[in-house]
Amino acid sequence: MSDQKSKYKLGTSVTLEKTFNAQDVEIFAELTGDKNPVHLDEQYAAGTRFGKRIVHGMLISSLFSTVFGTIFPGEGSIYMGQSLKFLKPVYLGEKITAKVTLTAIRDDKPIGSFETTCIDEAGDVVVTGEATLLLP
Amino acid sequence: MSDQKSKYKLGTSVTLEKTFNAQDVEIFAELTGDKNPVHLDEQYAAGTRFGKRIVHGMLISSLFSTVFGTIFPGEGSIYMGQSLKFLKPVYLGEKITAKVTLTAIRDDKPIGSFETTCIDEAGDVVVTGEATLLLP
Repeated sequence: MSDQKSKYKLGTSVTLEKTFNAQDVEIFAELTGDKNPVHLDEQYAAGTRFGKRIVHGMLISSLFSTVFGTIFPGEGSIYMGQSLKFLKPVYLGEKITAKVTLTAIRDDKPIGSFETTCIDEAGDVVVTGEATLLLP
Repeated sequence: MSDQKSKYKLGTSVTLEKTFNAQDVEIFAELTGDKNPVHLDEQYAAGTRFGKRIVHGMLISSLFSTVFGTIFPGEGSIYMGQSLKFLKPVYLGEKITAKVTLTAIRDDKPIGSFETTCIDEAGDVVVTGEATLLLP
């Protein structure tokens, strides 16, 4: 049995709140080159199914990496994998709560599985998925 | 059969090259709060298995969103899901080639599946996964 099996408690959850504003979305667009106008152009977005500019799904999902790398399990974690389903658009200025929950640890290796979700202020899941990490 | 079945050709691939430098990683850390020192602190990184600062996996993976939203299929695509496996670290200043390939389109709905990979200058796959999009 790996030492990590006794070090961590299954079911442990950590949450992180974050609101992305227009400037954040513009910086992310510049950084990645993802200048899809649904994120940047209010007039264009008004003509789409979303009606308003939305935050990039990958920017929202990056909050999982923030939790893993800085809170739980924290420094020394190695990100191995992440699955993501984008279920609901997130508009500029909406407060998002990212939640990660440790669901399993392998017996043979210090590899943990996590349920990962982002929830909006209405309580709806906007992003969901699973992550795999090598635990410190 | 959806119109998209005839509009797109299975096997179509698009690539995008990008190099993330120290400033990019610092901006991403500030934007997301992911200030894990393995990305920001050269001295800390030297003591890890990586030996040097590495680029955030979620920043690299965001290149898939860039391709989807701005090149292929382009504007009007709706990102539904993405899976990611982080296979090899990417160091600051390494040129990454993101490649997306259309692998399937559903018969009943205009939903496409894509193989998504990022490859480094050595030709090694650093990130791999699959994406699902509602096609424009």
